[in-house]
Amino acid sequence: MKKTHNELIDGIKALPPFPVVFVTVGKNIMVAGAFHFFSYNPPSVMVGIKPEKYTYELIKSMKEFAINIPSKEQLDSIKICGSLSGRKEDNKYERAGLTHKQGNKINSYIVNECSVNLECEVVHEIDFDGSHKWFIGEIKQVHVDENYRRSDTLMFWLGQFREVGALIEGRKDEDIFL
Amino acid sequence: MKKTHNELIDGIKALPPFPVVFVTVGKNIMVAGAFHFFSYNPPSVMVGIKPEKYTYELIKSMKEFAINIPSKEQLDSIKICGSLSGRKEDNKYERAGLTHKQGNKINSYIVNECSVNLECEVVHEIDFDGSHKWFIGEIKQVHVDENYRRSDTLMFWLGQFREVGALIEGRKDEDIFL
Repeated sequence: MKKTHNELIDGIKALPPFPVVFVTVGKNIMVAGAFHFFSYNPPSVMVGIKPEKYTYELIKSMKEFAINIPSKEQLDSIKICGSLSGRKEDNKYERAGLTHKQGNKINSYIVNECSVNLECEVVHEIDFDGSHKWFIGEIKQVHVDENYRRSDTLMFWLGQFREVGALIEGRKDEDIFL
Repeated sequence: MKKTHNELIDGIKALPPFPVVFVTVGKNIMVAGAFHFFSYNPPSVMVGIKPEKYTYELIKSMKEFAINIPSKEQLDSIKICGSLSGRKEDNKYERAGLTHKQGNKINSYIVNECSVNLECEVVHEIDFDGSHKWFIGEIKQVHVDENYRRSDTLMFWLGQFREVGALIEGRKDEDIFL
C-alpha cells in the first residue's frame, strides 16, 4: 500500500543509488554522490557541493575540477577521503592510499588509481537556495583505462554502498569500451 | 593502460549508470536518465530535458512535474514510453500498460504502478547552452509504497539497462524503508 509522507525529505531518501566519484581540485580530493552529466554537447558534467566544504572554496577560486571514477575495490579509499577535510588534513591522498598527477588541461590533480578522469573547466555555477551549490564543468580532457568496465564502478545512496547491478539489456561492457 | 581520448563525449559515455525514472507532466509521460536530487533543504530534485521534447514544452507551461520511480519489472513499460512522443500519441499510459491519477499538490498525473511518486513544483530553470535544459523541482508531496525497496529499481546508461547491485556496506533496504 502506498503511503503519503509528511516529511518531504523522505522523497530524497527514497531515491535509487547514484554513482559515487572523487572530485579533485587543486591538491584536494573529496567524495561526492551529487554528480551527473549536464549536456552531451558541449560535453559537460555537474557536481553539487555544500558551501561549507573546502572543495567549494577551491572550485570557486580555481574555476576547475576533475571527476575521477573509482572502482568498487576502492571503497576503503572513499571512506577515508569522506571522513577527512582537506582544510585540516593536507595529505588525504597518502592517507587514502592514492597518488595523483597534475591534469593536462587543468592545474588540479587527477587520481592515478581511478580508471576514468575527466578534466573540467567550470563554465557555470548554480547558486540557488539549497543545501548544495552545483558547478557545471565543460570536459576539456578525458582519460580512460583500457580495462575500465562500467560494471566495476561503485554506487551510493543513504549510507548504502553498492555494486553496479547485472546487465538486463544492452551491449556488454567489453563491447563498449574496447 | 590509460588512454587520453580526443573525443570529449567519451567522458560522458564512460560514466557509471544512473537511475531511470518516469517524468510525468499534464497527461504526458516520458522516460529520463537525466535525473538527480538538487538539495536536501528544501527537498528538491532536478531533471534534464531536451528542448525538442514535448515534455519540455509542458513543463515550461505548467511549471510542475512528477518523478515516478519504476522497478526493474517495468522495463517493458519504459521501453514503450521511451519509443513514443506524447505529441503524436496521446495514449502512452495505455500502450505501456500503466495507469495514472492526478497528484494531490499538482495538476499533473502520477503513475499508480510506480512505488515512489514525487510531486514537484518548478522553482528554477537552468537555461544554459547545452543539449539538455534542467528543471529544479521542489518536492511538494511524497508517496512511497510500503513494499518499496531501492534494490528493485532500474539503472541506465549508454543503452545498458541494469539492476541495482548488491549491497557492499550499509543498512539493508528493509531496515530503511519500513
